[in-house]
Amino acid sequence: MINDKKLIAVIGGSEVSPQIARLAEEVGREIARRGATLVCGGLGGVMEAACKGASEEGGLTIGILPGENRREANPYVQIPIVTGIGYARNAAVVKTARAVIAIDGSYGTLTEIGYALQSGIPIIGLKTWSLSIDGKADNNIIIAKSPKEAVEKAMALININ
Amino acid sequence: MINDKKLIAVIGGSEVSPQIARLAEEVGREIARRGATLVCGGLGGVMEAACKGASEEGGLTIGILPGENRREANPYVQIPIVTGIGYARNAAVVKTARAVIAIDGSYGTLTEIGYALQSGIPIIGLKTWSLSIDGKADNNIIIAKSPKEAVEKAMALININ
Amino acid sequence: MINDKKLIAVIGGSEVSPQIARLAEEVGREIARRGATLVCGGLGGVMEAACKGASEEGGLTIGILPGENRREANPYVQIPIVTGIGYARNAAVVKTARAVIAIDGSYGTLTEIGYALQSGIPIIGLKTWSLSIDGKADNNIIIAKSPKEAVEKAMALININ
Amino acid sequence: MINDKKLIAVIGGSEVSPQIARLAEEVGREIARRGATLVCGGLGGVMEAACKGASEEGGLTIGILPGENRREANPYVQIPIVTGIGYARNAAVVKTARAVIAIDGSYGTLTEIGYALQSGIPIIGLKTWSLSIDGKADNNIIIAKSPKEAVEKAMALININ
Repeated sequence: MINDKKLIAVIGGSEVSPQIARLAEEVGREIARRGATLVCGGLGGVMEAACKGASEEGGLTIGILPGENRREANPYVQIPIVTGIGYARNAAVVKTARAVIAIDGSYGTLTEIGYALQSGIPIIGLKTWSLSIDGKADNNIIIAKSPKEAVEKAMALININ
Repeated sequence: MINDKKLIAVIGGSEVSPQIARLAEEVGREIARRGATLVCGGLGGVMEAACKGASEEGGLTIGILPGENRREANPYVQIPIVTGIGYARNAAVVKTARAVIAIDGSYGTLTEIGYALQSGIPIIGLKTWSLSIDGKADNNIIIAKSPKEAVEKAMALININ
Repeated sequence: MINDKKLIAVIGGSEVSPQIARLAEEVGREIARRGATLVCGGLGGVMEAACKGASEEGGLTIGILPGENRREANPYVQIPIVTGIGYARNAAVVKTARAVIAIDGSYGTLTEIGYALQSGIPIIGLKTWSLSIDGKADNNIIIAKSPKEAVEKAMALININ
Repeated sequence: MINDKKLIAVIGGSEVSPQIARLAEEVGREIARRGATLVCGGLGGVMEAACKGASEEGGLTIGILPGENRREANPYVQIPIVTGIGYARNAAVVKTARAVIAIDGSYGTLTEIGYALQSGIPIIGLKTWSLSIDGKADNNIIIAKSPKEAVEKAMALININ
């Protein structure tokens, strides 16, 4: 089997502050430096910054787009997947990955976190959502303090699973 | 236009405690008593209890199923919609509704909450998820203390919007 | 089990000639006269004419919409299902039905015919696509000459299956 | 923009004769020889043979899978996209491509042909479906006599569009 590429999803909002964009770009760089492939939703914000970082380090980037046209991809997506299924594509973004890194996050990111937790795909969070249910904390999102730590944890979890 | 039925989605886990099932059944009853139509994911747990309550009060129930067969619907679904798109159907459950009531909740429920918040569909929570982002609480889930209060709030929000 | 409603899908293009619209309206009437429920893609053309016919005979109509807004439904859809998954919803239109009637037809209709044949759902054609593969005719679309014959054949096939 | 890879979809049944598999493998080889990237549904039959051919010539292969697990991909898929949306993913297979080559074909292939024609994506047929509507032939599937001719036509159409 040759489909043993290590795919890591990076998820986060399409409109973010420069500080969050810098974190996302560094996550992209760290993914590429470790020879992993980046998958994301293909649009702007966290997705674009992560693709930029990965591309500049020579990594491969895949964007799973909601709309009908590959031209909606950010300029650093090397392989645009055109789903045409709108934000139902969020499920595909995380299921395609072997680990997920969530950075900051909009409500779309929250759906992706839910799909990752539902599917048992490891998820690492950087300044992202935290959850509690009926007053009890849910600690299944693994916290990271830096881009490097987030990617190291993702790689470690892929190698175990 | 005759498609003015008031559709309210009830979301929650497919395996729940008897206490949560009683809450869901009562939510279903309250929806039917007010002449609204219940939409849900069509499976067991919260979905089945809510459909049971609504059906017993003479209400209409719609189940938007993930799989390929209408027979996977719970016995109180009157109109099974067979999507075949798996849990990507979670987006359709909430988008079909004019207000959403979340009860307890699994990770699938979390994805539905994310889609409702993303789409600007009012969401009322009964013993469900609460959210914070990078340490700040997100208060966009409207809290209810009882089934009756949840449905009253949903109806009021439909009539405004 | 109460989800024993007889759902029949009517599929066909969203822009059609007045002659085709009359056929579709009559198919809708015949479905409602037999107590069956009409399901369709919820938009204009064949879908709207069929919903109009069914509604005028007191039947129930369901529209499984591609977009994000229930307001895109034609005015005769009583229950709009908002999928947000674009034309991938074509699979759901036919899978929700126990028999399918294709009238005339665009390329979208062709995808729906393919899904019905793939899923083993009986499909009856009125002035619609015919198919051959590598020169051999495929006769799995059941031909009808009139709206009444189409609906009679659909009802007979539902009662067998 | 770096997402200028020339993606060509190869579609066809998951169970095929050895003769059809040889055609599909040769189509895959021709795609890779021209530096294009192959996209397909990721399963067996035509999809596997085409991926085998492309991989053996050093080409890149993408499989857009219907299910929930990357392990359902055939062994020659290098990048498995896990959609979890069942055969609704057929729309994504063709929309991701800039030209489509249909070989032989099951009913799933027919849905993909419908989506390609609906979206205006050029489609070339090798021993595949032919269509007529209400007795009139539809000639929008471009006929090819050999794998080489099919891929040459696909490349020419990508370069025009």
